[in-house]
Amino acid sequence: MRIGILGYGNLGRGVECALMQNPDMELKGVFTRRAPKTVRILTPDVPVYSIEEAEKMQNEIDVMILCGGSATDLPEQTPKYARLFHVVDSFDTHAKIPEHFSKVDTASKEGGKVGVISVGWDPGMFSLSRMYMGAILPEGKDYTFWGKGVSQGHSDAVRRIDGVLDARQYTIPRPEAISAVRGGTMPDLTTGEKHTRECFVVAEEGADLERIEREIKTMPNYFADYETTVHFITKEEMARDHSQLPHGGVVIRSGQTGIDKEHTNLIEYSLKLDSNPEFTASVLVAYARAAYRLGAEGVAGCKTVLDIPPAYLSPMSGEELRKQLL
Amino acid sequence: MRIGILGYGNLGRGVECALMQNPDMELKGVFTRRAPKTVRILTPDVPVYSIEEAEKMQNEIDVMILCGGSATDLPEQTPKYARLFHVVDSFDTHAKIPEHFSKVDTASKEGGKVGVISVGWDPGMFSLSRMYMGAILPEGKDYTFWGKGVSQGHSDAVRRIDGVLDARQYTIPRPEAISAVRGGTMPDLTTGEKHTRECFVVAEEGADLERIEREIKTMPNYFADYETTVHFITKEEMARDHSQLPHGGVVIRSGQTGIDKEHTNLIEYSLKLDSNPEFTASVLVAYARAAYRLGAEGVAGCKTVLDIPPAYLSPMSGEELRKQLL
Repeated sequence: MRIGILGYGNLGRGVECALMQNPDMELKGVFTRRAPKTVRILTPDVPVYSIEEAEKMQNEIDVMILCGGSATDLPEQTPKYARLFHVVDSFDTHAKIPEHFSKVDTASKEGGKVGVISVGWDPGMFSLSRMYMGAILPEGKDYTFWGKGVSQGHSDAVRRIDGVLDARQYTIPRPEAISAVRGGTMPDLTTGEKHTRECFVVAEEGADLERIEREIKTMPNYFADYETTVHFITKEEMARDHSQLPHGGVVIRSGQTGIDKEHTNLIEYSLKLDSNPEFTASVLVAYARAAYRLGAEGVAGCKTVLDIPPAYLSPMSGEELRKQLL
Repeated sequence: MRIGILGYGNLGRGVECALMQNPDMELKGVFTRRAPKTVRILTPDVPVYSIEEAEKMQNEIDVMILCGGSATDLPEQTPKYARLFHVVDSFDTHAKIPEHFSKVDTASKEGGKVGVISVGWDPGMFSLSRMYMGAILPEGKDYTFWGKGVSQGHSDAVRRIDGVLDARQYTIPRPEAISAVRGGTMPDLTTGEKHTRECFVVAEEGADLERIEREIKTMPNYFADYETTVHFITKEEMARDHSQLPHGGVVIRSGQTGIDKEHTNLIEYSLKLDSNPEFTASVLVAYARAAYRLGAEGVAGCKTVLDIPPAYLSPMSGEELRKQLL
C-alpha cells in the first residue's frame, strides 16, 4: 500500500512513525502547506511536497491520510481528496459528523474511492466500544470518562485569556464516579460530576492572577460547570513538566440480564496513552489498510469504524486470525 | 426476525431472556432432545418441540441459535443446521475452530445461509479485542487474564476424583501479574504465573481428604502448573455460596509508539459478569441479528466476530448510530 500524509503536525508525525511499524505500507510523500524545503521529516529519502502537488499524484498514492484539524481543514479537505484517493481522517466535531459523512460519501462515490472518517479513539475506538456494548447489553447504560489527559481545546481557551502566555489543561475523571458506575447502580451523572479540570498557567509578569483564575473558573461551557483548579507556574516548569500529550479514558457499560434483570454485567474499554497523537495516528494507519482493501473489492463511499469488518484492519489473513486470535 | 433456540440448558435459557430485551426478534420455538412436555420455558405461549421437528421448520424460523456443548453437540449440529437456517453457535474449543469453520462454511454455502461460529466472550469479544488492539499497536504484546470465575471444565475434572460428590473451581487472576502488565514492562508470563485456582469440594463422608487434595493439586494440565487452594465444604455451603456462575476477565495490550518507541500505550477490555451464560447468550443474540442481515443481503458461508461489520449487531440504522454513538 502506498501512503501519503497530508498535514505534518503532531498527528502527521505520529502517522509517519506508525507506518514504520507496518511493513505492508510504504510512505510515498508528505504534503504540507508550508514551504516543503522548510519541513524535515523522520523517514529518510521520502519527499516532502507542496499540498498543491497532491492532486497530481493519483497514480503514486493509494491512501491519503489526512492529518489536518477538524475546525477548518478536514471539512474542506476530506471531500476534496476523497474524489482522488482512498482517504482516512480523524474528524472529531461530534455534532457535525452526519454532515461530514454525507459530503464525503458523495465525493468518494464520484471518485470510486473509500473515505473513512472520524477515526481515532473518540470518535473511533470509544464509539465502537459503545456500539458493541449497547448491542450486547440493550438493557443498561454506558458512561464515558475522559482523562487523565491534556485537552487541546480547553488549553487553547485558557491561552486566549488576557495576561496568559501559555496554558495546559488536564481533564481528570473523578475516581468516586468511576467507582459508582462500576458498582452497577447506574447513577445519573453530568459531565461535571464525572470530571474535574486542572489548569497550569504561565502568566505575563505583573498580570492580575486572581482575575485570570476567576475568568477561567467562570468560563461558560469550558469550566463553569466543573470543579476547576488553577496553578500558576513558570515557563521553565511548563517546558519541563507539561510538554507531553498523554490522554486516555474509559467507556463502561453496566447492563442487566436474566428474567428479572437480576444479574449485572460490566463491560469496560479503557485507554492509557503516553501519546494521544501517536495513538490516534496508529488507529488511522490500521484503517488506511481497511480502506485500501475495501477499495480493492470495488467498494466506494464513506465509511466509519462502525461499518468496517474488524479483520480488514489486520495484516493477517482470515485463516491466520482464526487460528491465532479466535 | 424469527428465532429458534436449539438446546435448553443455562445457555438456552440465557438466550431466551436476551430475546425479551430485543423487540425486533421473536422466539418461535425451543428445540430439545428431552421429551418436550417435560421442558418448561420462561416465555408464555411459545412451543417446545422435539429436536427432530427442527428440520421441518425452515419456513417458520430465520435464525437458529445453537446452545449445545462444544465437545460433542456443536461439531455435529452446526454443520447440519447451517444447511437449513442461518445459525449462531458458541463453539469454544480453540484448537478445533479452523476445522469447525471449514465444515460450517461448506454447509452454509450449500444451503445459501450464514453460519456464525465461536460467538461469546472467549472466543468472541476477547478475540475481537485482541484483533483490534494488535492491528492498532503492532509493536506490543497482549495478555489475557480470566476470572475471577467458575471454570466448568476444571469443576468437572475435580468431580471425577474418587470420593468427590460436588466441586466448584474458581480461576483467579493474580493482581501482581495484572499490575506488572499495566506497568508497561511487557513481562513474559505463563498461564500459571497469571492465575491461581481455588476449589470448593464436597467430599463423601469418610473420604480421605488429604488424598483428594493431593490428586487435585497434582492433576496434569488442569492444576499441576498452578498455585491451587482446596477447601472442603458441606453440601449446604455449596448450595448457599456457589450456585451462581460469575466470570470475567481482561485483555490488555501494551504497545509502543514513537520514532524510538518511547511512548507506551495501554488498551484494556474487561468483563465482570454476574452470569457467564447469560452474557454469552446476549452476545449470541446480537450476532443472530447480524446473521439475519447478512443473509438478507445474499451473503452465504461461515463468519466469525472478526468478519462482521460492527453496525450489523445493532438495531439502530447507520444514520442513528453516526448521530448518537460516533
